[in-house]
Amino acid sequence: MASGEDSLIARYFRPLATDPGAFGLGDDAAVLDGRGDEIVVTTDAIVEGVHFLSDDPPETLARKALRVSLSDLAAKGATPAGFVLTLALRSADDAWLASFARGLGEDIGLFGCPLLGGDTVSTPGPLMVSITAFGRVPTGKMVRRSNAKPGDRVVVTGTIGDAALGLDILKGGAVATVLDDDVAAKEVLVGRYRVPQPRNALAKAVRDHAHAAMDVSDGLAGDLAKLCAASGVSAVVDAQSIPLSAAAAALLTRGTVGIEVLVAGGDDYEILCTVPEAAFEAFAQGAGLAGVAVTSIGTVIAGTSSPRFLDGQGREIGLPRLSYSHF
Amino acid sequence: MASGEDSLIARYFRPLATDPGAFGLGDDAAVLDGRGDEIVVTTDAIVEGVHFLSDDPPETLARKALRVSLSDLAAKGATPAGFVLTLALRSADDAWLASFARGLGEDIGLFGCPLLGGDTVSTPGPLMVSITAFGRVPTGKMVRRSNAKPGDRVVVTGTIGDAALGLDILKGGAVATVLDDDVAAKEVLVGRYRVPQPRNALAKAVRDHAHAAMDVSDGLAGDLAKLCAASGVSAVVDAQSIPLSAAAAALLTRGTVGIEVLVAGGDDYEILCTVPEAAFEAFAQGAGLAGVAVTSIGTVIAGTSSPRFLDGQGREIGLPRLSYSHF
Repeated sequence: MASGEDSLIARYFRPLATDPGAFGLGDDAAVLDGRGDEIVVTTDAIVEGVHFLSDDPPETLARKALRVSLSDLAAKGATPAGFVLTLALRSADDAWLASFARGLGEDIGLFGCPLLGGDTVSTPGPLMVSITAFGRVPTGKMVRRSNAKPGDRVVVTGTIGDAALGLDILKGGAVATVLDDDVAAKEVLVGRYRVPQPRNALAKAVRDHAHAAMDVSDGLAGDLAKLCAASGVSAVVDAQSIPLSAAAAALLTRGTVGIEVLVAGGDDYEILCTVPEAAFEAFAQGAGLAGVAVTSIGTVIAGTSSPRFLDGQGREIGLPRLSYSHF
Repeated sequence: MASGEDSLIARYFRPLATDPGAFGLGDDAAVLDGRGDEIVVTTDAIVEGVHFLSDDPPETLARKALRVSLSDLAAKGATPAGFVLTLALRSADDAWLASFARGLGEDIGLFGCPLLGGDTVSTPGPLMVSITAFGRVPTGKMVRRSNAKPGDRVVVTGTIGDAALGLDILKGGAVATVLDDDVAAKEVLVGRYRVPQPRNALAKAVRDHAHAAMDVSDGLAGDLAKLCAASGVSAVVDAQSIPLSAAAAALLTRGTVGIEVLVAGGDDYEILCTVPEAAFEAFAQGAGLAGVAVTSIGTVIAGTSSPRFLDGQGREIGLPRLSYSHF
């Protein structure tokens, strides 16, 4: 009686849909309770061969798809409230789906973000995962891109550029050659590409203290330019203070990559935000309590020119490419 | 400075995003105000070569993508509140995008369903449009699939089977041959495939009077079976009372298609609901005021067997296939 599609949903995804608003995935729609808050909505799609590689494990792929959206919610200061999932698959492969659902289920628990519904369709083309995620903020409190003010500190979480290096390794690029025998470093960088670490623990501190925020998905340089453009400001960044992992710092020292590659690489899924000087100490304290590293890398200034990245001698670093664009 | 992706969004989609919660598509997320209601969430994807044909006009494709989701909201008794759009494109073709955005913009106005955000990605594979739409219902009032009761009337809106005939025409099947010189009939049927007519005008009557409801997307027979299974009931349908368009009725009379094809065809995007006898008159009155044709086609009965479709002599009609399944 049940179609292949229904069995697939019942077997792999119904167990993940425990929120009452999901109705056990047995209906055509789900329900979100507004609870007097505003609902923040964000949507992201990842495509095989574009955002992930065909041989990426389904378990990490599921995590990445969800975490990319969780990262947006974190940057907007929102608490995860749930998500809907669209899967476009070439075939319904049991082993693949079991692994995908396992990774997704673990992250649903880890981040407290319930599966509310979705759509599963067949495609003759590349695999695609699209997630629309919902978060809650007190009314009017979503942190925008567009409210950065001259004098704000430019702050990023975690480290920048690792995911781009991880992708280079997976593609057998220069980084793979240089790190040939350093299995541990390669694992760290590939892990950063495959499984982002969204900074949802920082959402409240961002909401309480940041003027403007977004997550770094397309590259720090390009995303800072977007934030500045949306706010009608410019910025100066001290490139030497951009936080790097030990592996990335070593590759920079050896000359394998330049800083201009690390800041244009994308897939970081760190939070980029601007915090007024007077609030920085409280913000840093909140970040410490949340266990998230934050680094002040520059200053918002008046003006409309592109943000400038300066080296140790105060000279502007040329950035041939700011970020990834699909078209 | 702006990437191709950003220009594409600014040019084609920002003009459509006039709701204040969309922030002019200039942010990473949108905001929905709960207003004390519940937010109904539904998501649907359509894939080139699976849900639409490569030569379907982009304008009707946009309308279909949105209307498929609007149809879900209507069946759930919800008032449209907005949507997010994911577009996976092989290339950014201006003429294509302009036509797509024009169709979308007209339907946004027609149905009062604002664009809130989205994601545009490149794909080497088939074009894909995924929409997550939001609607409002008073708390607890979303109409479920699972509440049909024995004795309820089984009701459908509009006419059944036209879209399946339209698809057959586009594919050059038997219907195309039979209707060769009847251009008007062909246009009607193809139009029903390409541009569904979601019954949002009926949402309030459904919410006020129906026990259970869903939209008919995969075929009346299969969707009624799903509704019955979710409700733990069965149903008997008088096949002769299934509402057909003049074109479909003529093809049935000529023997070009059987009723078993029309009820398994899918893409109808009509509302299927069950209404208690005592509420039927009020429901029909509400439908009349909304300008939506509703037809009582059968009765919900106790039991767990598949719904039965009976012919004019009360004999059960064999249904080799109930509906479309992706896998």
